[in-house]
Amino acid sequence: MADLRKDPVTGRWVIISTERQKRPSDFQIETVTIKPDELCPFCEGHEDKTPPEILAYRNGTPGNVGGWDIRVVPNKFPALRVEGTLDREAEGLFDRMNGIGAHEVIIETPTHTETLATMPEPAIEKVFWAWRDRVLDLKRDIRLRHIVIFKNHGASAGASLEHAHSQLIALPIVPREMAEEMEGARRHYQQKERCVFCDVMRQELKDGSRVIAESSDFVAIAPYAPRFPFETWLLPKRHRSRFEEATPGEFASLARMLKETLQRMNSTLLTPPYNLIVHSAPLQEDASDFYHWHIEVMPKLTRVAGFEWGTGFYINPTGPEEAAEVLRRAKT
Amino acid sequence: MADLRKDPVTGRWVIISTERQKRPSDFQIETVTIKPDELCPFCEGHEDKTPPEILAYRNGTPGNVGGWDIRVVPNKFPALRVEGTLDREAEGLFDRMNGIGAHEVIIETPTHTETLATMPEPAIEKVFWAWRDRVLDLKRDIRLRHIVIFKNHGASAGASLEHAHSQLIALPIVPREMAEEMEGARRHYQQKERCVFCDVMRQELKDGSRVIAESSDFVAIAPYAPRFPFETWLLPKRHRSRFEEATPGEFASLARMLKETLQRMNSTLLTPPYNLIVHSAPLQEDASDFYHWHIEVMPKLTRVAGFEWGTGFYINPTGPEEAAEVLRRAKT
Repeated sequence: MADLRKDPVTGRWVIISTERQKRPSDFQIETVTIKPDELCPFCEGHEDKTPPEILAYRNGTPGNVGGWDIRVVPNKFPALRVEGTLDREAEGLFDRMNGIGAHEVIIETPTHTETLATMPEPAIEKVFWAWRDRVLDLKRDIRLRHIVIFKNHGASAGASLEHAHSQLIALPIVPREMAEEMEGARRHYQQKERCVFCDVMRQELKDGSRVIAESSDFVAIAPYAPRFPFETWLLPKRHRSRFEEATPGEFASLARMLKETLQRMNSTLLTPPYNLIVHSAPLQEDASDFYHWHIEVMPKLTRVAGFEWGTGFYINPTGPEEAAEVLRRAKT
Repeated sequence: MADLRKDPVTGRWVIISTERQKRPSDFQIETVTIKPDELCPFCEGHEDKTPPEILAYRNGTPGNVGGWDIRVVPNKFPALRVEGTLDREAEGLFDRMNGIGAHEVIIETPTHTETLATMPEPAIEKVFWAWRDRVLDLKRDIRLRHIVIFKNHGASAGASLEHAHSQLIALPIVPREMAEEMEGARRHYQQKERCVFCDVMRQELKDGSRVIAESSDFVAIAPYAPRFPFETWLLPKRHRSRFEEATPGEFASLARMLKETLQRMNSTLLTPPYNLIVHSAPLQEDASDFYHWHIEVMPKLTRVAGFEWGTGFYINPTGPEEAAEVLRRAKT
């Protein structure tokens, strides 16, 4: 018999389907392989193939040439732009505004074939510092309400270039999923005077069945009501509402935890495509006791179909207890 | 400059990206072709390869043999089952219930290679009657709160079998998307004493730029804030909150409108995969003046990636005005 489970923050229900129970070998996984590409615009030496950099971590070299660890550039085909004024208007019944915002690409390594699963930990830390630097810069623009940092790895997860990169989109509104997450977390806090994520973490560590890994600063869990098979959340033990408030020690700890998480997925799920999303409180809000930043990693093993679009309700063929057990035992 | 647009019912924002503007020929479309399959369990003569039928429209033949127009069978790997009692319980912080519900497959034609775009209109009408019959039967079970009828056409839209079929899932809860749609529609009604869908339809017919087709009973529009390129909604002109309240005349009219809509997509978008979802008010609710049933058809032309998962906020590279113009002029 299937299980219907509710996410304690968003209230989202999922079906954990036992009839369709799937173990790693049951998925048709599109293994991500990175082919050499002499024309790759993100490789060192090809700096002229991207728009001029917004930020780079360099060893004394001038801008827009080689000699860097991380580069941040505007997306060549940005969904949103910072130029212009934010105009909000009605069109009869409808509401619109112009696309003020930012859309940036974080090139995570100068080397074409490296990934977050293979890069040295200090190099991964630098990716977090770059994310942080861009957030701190963009949040000074009071028109912006929310920043989403995410990563699409592999073509079927939506990546159009193979070279390791993440993206940042800054929006003039707080998107619905985030608003719902905030609302759910706020409701829990109002009732209990405790952060729901801190509560979940305590319960998960006590229970153990959905814990994948634990370090001094982070916990990796399979969430109770995962939308996707092998979905994994990385939660900082120290309560903070925003990613950019993490300490240098936490970034070091997160680099190890993230690298190991991806290695666990690679060794058990045939180097799958994945999406990674940083969940952090909206801008222009005070630091809060109720929201808790974290990272969600979703290997792309299944297709989302009509039922999911129609309902926002997911059928997941792998229970989180089983997923956690597989990932816990995986090689790192 | 991109446009940020808000759906007037759900409050969902989308980015209509002009930098990434895409016309039909810019998409890498996975054309759906239906290959002969001697082992297809949905073909006439293979009735023993499915679980016994729940419903069939037959010409006097006995059950579970050939001689039918439509067959409804339980899904062989159901996400939910009707057997058992509905147990709701807490697991510490978490909430769960067992998977009571139903998961059925509507086999739309005995012929392997027919589709809703090629079947005669009276045969398409029968599909609607089958959907209706199953809803009327299932809604007598008071444990069930909502029924989703949907269709995945083509492998990349999530179909695991090529033979034309739709699915029905009955749930013991009202899923989040539906609850939000109801809430948005209720809010509009409370403010204005009018159905938001009726309001939208009036405005669209007056404006014309997003209208794809109009008949005596239905309107096909590209919605103002579409999540996906060439997303198309079919709205009945007569206000009713539930699909199953449609009249025989409306089903005939809908058969033509749906067939033409799919033909328009096929001729301009290279016979794309698509998802179709019937939006109808939850069960166990009275007929309402604020909710308006309709059908949403979404050709699958793009991949949904990290940003969308992280935010519930979609980047659509084709504006609905452009999509409507292309589809309006398309061959049917």
